[in-house]
Amino acid sequence: MITDVTNSTFVQALVSQIRAQDPYGVYRSWSDELLLKPYILSKEEKRKIPVDTPVDPVTKGRITYFYGAIAREIERQTGKLMQVVINVNEEGFGWALVFSGKLLAVTRTLRDAQRFGFTSLEQLAQEGEKAVQAGIALIQKFPEVAEA
Amino acid sequence: MITDVTNSTFVQALVSQIRAQDPYGVYRSWSDELLLKPYILSKEEKRKIPVDTPVDPVTKGRITYFYGAIAREIERQTGKLMQVVINVNEEGFGWALVFSGKLLAVTRTLRDAQRFGFTSLEQLAQEGEKAVQAGIALIQKFPEVAEA
Repeated sequence: MITDVTNSTFVQALVSQIRAQDPYGVYRSWSDELLLKPYILSKEEKRKIPVDTPVDPVTKGRITYFYGAIAREIERQTGKLMQVVINVNEEGFGWALVFSGKLLAVTRTLRDAQRFGFTSLEQLAQEGEKAVQAGIALIQKFPEVAEA
Repeated sequence: MITDVTNSTFVQALVSQIRAQDPYGVYRSWSDELLLKPYILSKEEKRKIPVDTPVDPVTKGRITYFYGAIAREIERQTGKLMQVVINVNEEGFGWALVFSGKLLAVTRTLRDAQRFGFTSLEQLAQEGEKAVQAGIALIQKFPEVAEA
C-alpha cells in the first residue's frame, strides 16, 4: 500500500527534488520511504517540536522540496516554467508561493513551519496532488496572466 | 527641488514605512531627506559594498520598506489588500513580490541586493511610482485574479 503512494507522480517528483541535492551520494542506498520519513510526523511528534526558535535549515529545505515538487509537476503538465519562493520569518510564519508570469498558481501561508509535516505518506501525496491540480486549473483559467 | 520629490505620495509612503518602525522615536527629529539618505548610492559607493557576504538586516529592511511603500500605494489607489514577500538568498539574489489574491502586481528579481539603492531621490521616486502604476494597471486588467 505504502509502495503505491510512493510510486505516485507527485511523490516521485518530491523524491527527485531530494535526491537532486545529494552531492555526496549519501541517499543513494536509501529507499524512497526512508528518504521521505522526516515528512511524516504524528500530532504527538509535532507537539514536541518547539515553535519559539527559528525554523532550522533542514526543515526549511523540506518545505522547499515539497513546493519544488509541486512546481515541477505543474511544469510537466502545463509546459509553463514555475518559480518557487519560500519565505519564513523567525517565528515560523510565512508564505510558500509557486508562480508563473504574474499568476500565483499556489499560495500557502505557513504557520509553525518548524512543525512542517504530514500525518502519513498518503496525506502528503494527497496534499501535494491537490495543490498541483488547483495550480493547473488556475493556469488554464487565466493563461494570459501566467504569460504576463 | 529635492523638497518636491520628498513630497511625492510614493516617497511619503516610504517615509511612513520607515517611521512606523521606530519604537524608540530615534527618527522623530530626523528630516525625511536624512531618513532616505541610505537609499541613495553613487556607482562608486555601490562598487565598494562587497557582494560576497550575506545581505545585512538593515539593507534587507530598506528593500522591505521600498516594496512595502509600493504595496501601500497600490492599496490606497485600488482598495485591494496587498501582500509583500522579499526573498533574498545568501548571495544577494532573490525576489521582491507584491500580490493580491492570485495576482502578482509587482515582481522584481533582486541581484546584488547588498547594493540596493538609487542614484538620486528622483530616481527612487520614479522607480517606485513606475512600479505602483504598473501594478495598478495589472489589477485593473485582471480584477478577478486579484480576488481569486
